[in-house]
Amino acid sequence: MSELRKDPITGRWVIISSERGRRPSDFQEATAKRKGGFCPFCGGNERFTPPEILAYREPGTTPNSAGWSLRVVANKFPALKIEGNLDKTGIGLFDKMNGIGAHEVIIESPSHETTMSTLPDKKIEDIIWAYRDRVLDLKKDPRFQYILIFKNEGEAAGASLEHSHSQLIALPVIPRQVTEEIEGARLYYNYKERCIYCDIVKQEMSSEERTVVENEHFIAITPFAARFPFETWIIPKNHNSCFDEAQPWEYNSLARIMKNLLLRLDKVLNIPPYNYIIHTSPLRSQVNDFYHWHLEIMPKLVRIAGFEGGSGFYINPTSPEESAKFLREAKV
Amino acid sequence: MSELRKDPITGRWVIISSERGRRPSDFQEATAKRKGGFCPFCGGNERFTPPEILAYREPGTTPNSAGWSLRVVANKFPALKIEGNLDKTGIGLFDKMNGIGAHEVIIESPSHETTMSTLPDKKIEDIIWAYRDRVLDLKKDPRFQYILIFKNEGEAAGASLEHSHSQLIALPVIPRQVTEEIEGARLYYNYKERCIYCDIVKQEMSSEERTVVENEHFIAITPFAARFPFETWIIPKNHNSCFDEAQPWEYNSLARIMKNLLLRLDKVLNIPPYNYIIHTSPLRSQVNDFYHWHLEIMPKLVRIAGFEGGSGFYINPTSPEESAKFLREAKV
Repeated sequence: MSELRKDPITGRWVIISSERGRRPSDFQEATAKRKGGFCPFCGGNERFTPPEILAYREPGTTPNSAGWSLRVVANKFPALKIEGNLDKTGIGLFDKMNGIGAHEVIIESPSHETTMSTLPDKKIEDIIWAYRDRVLDLKKDPRFQYILIFKNEGEAAGASLEHSHSQLIALPVIPRQVTEEIEGARLYYNYKERCIYCDIVKQEMSSEERTVVENEHFIAITPFAARFPFETWIIPKNHNSCFDEAQPWEYNSLARIMKNLLLRLDKVLNIPPYNYIIHTSPLRSQVNDFYHWHLEIMPKLVRIAGFEGGSGFYINPTSPEESAKFLREAKV
Repeated sequence: MSELRKDPITGRWVIISSERGRRPSDFQEATAKRKGGFCPFCGGNERFTPPEILAYREPGTTPNSAGWSLRVVANKFPALKIEGNLDKTGIGLFDKMNGIGAHEVIIESPSHETTMSTLPDKKIEDIIWAYRDRVLDLKKDPRFQYILIFKNEGEAAGASLEHSHSQLIALPVIPRQVTEEIEGARLYYNYKERCIYCDIVKQEMSSEERTVVENEHFIAITPFAARFPFETWIIPKNHNSCFDEAQPWEYNSLARIMKNLLLRLDKVLNIPPYNYIIHTSPLRSQVNDFYHWHLEIMPKLVRIAGFEGGSGFYINPTSPEESAKFLREAKV
């Protein structure tokens, strides 16, 4: 079984994944291309994935057969597993627990050729609803503290299968980056009695130099201290601490701004690999006045030098204002 | 001029580098190989680099000509520049300052074919002394808060030139990862009245399952909560908060354990790309009882999925105990 281990100095949790146990020689192979050939995510190949947990499908079709437009299945090589006890243990000054959690794959379309940016708005909205449906189900499990929803698009961004999909990891701990954002936002709230993201939205809407696109309920901006070229955040205009507490019309609005932004990225950067992550409140403190859920998209353009991961210090060779200008002026 | 900008939520500083200003089309080219051809770091090509700041050279040879075994020069495309004022400014709720700092390159050998692992111990010791010499000089500048010393080896680890070199960035701010380590170590010290790294060294020496190699003054271990396969830390056995306050015999001992460890990594992982970073106390609080300087080496084997950078949450597919066993048993 995998383990969750805590770095005793910084408090960062990592998954030590035995299921993915890799010996030195495995890393040579890992660089081989995995394109082409058989795809378990394609329509008609349902029997090659774990059974579906959720599917949006045509009326009258049978689970785990054709006729679906979106499927959620367990990850075949999960980083964490749902069965068992956390069994929190100390080893001298170290802390660990069993690798309990859920690791699911959202297959976004039965077609291998589709990318999220080429899906109709309605299909993107379905993906967002699937995220929400899974969060509502998984948060009933009292062992889970956080649900990480993310997408790796393209091999360079870490996608191990080409077929368009997102992932969801339910965790018995809170990722460090989430804790940092929440503590930062809380500090600001204690001082100002305002949500810092609400203030950022207001400031960006008045200056516009980092605005990429906006609609009724969302604004897409390049953040002032962007780590990466063309890094973009999609922030709801109305305060809401929690992704799964959003209103139905907001999901519709989110789908449209995501599609619009992805088309701009495709146009300006020639269909780049990218990652996005939904940032939301931990499950046990979902509704609050100081945090503000949002989605962060990071095109994978520059190789992150190892020192950047190790130092937490980033050098961004394209200013957010320039990035925003290119994206804003793209014809889509 | 480049800018240092602070993320208002997490407090993370980033460099927005105008000198490296990149337009969308530049990222397509960035993937081209830069191997072969002319190398400004090779012996005899001294006139193609900025003038040397420091060199270890044969007696009687002239600066910026052949006859050196190690040279330190300014980075030709620096992320930060030494001239000017910090000029700290607020823009609404955002904070920034001018990109003041130093960005230097330590050219480790006049030979293009040499890697650090193939250098004699004495030459590695020279590199370490060069780091120290530069730190002692740069810390006289009261604007600087931290000096980041690191090495990117291999293109996949972010090296833009093949010729073996390290880099040094003097910063007017403290990188977030450093602050986190120091705050974590301080918390432990306040509770236990002991240095957490000293306790880790003691625990690892008694269990040995994560020990790779040790000598008189240093131990190399795979950390309990390693983020990456074969991630290894070299820690001084005696408490010392500050790299440049080490004893001369410690630098000799460090050179030998670095060489030994690099040979093991080359053997087990077939000459992998890697990064290392020296972790030490900030310049204005160098000597203390709670922090403990060390060096962290991260072979670049798995592509870091973007979500890992964005969430601060890592999945490591090889346990530190297995990594240590492979490295420990390598014949070097």
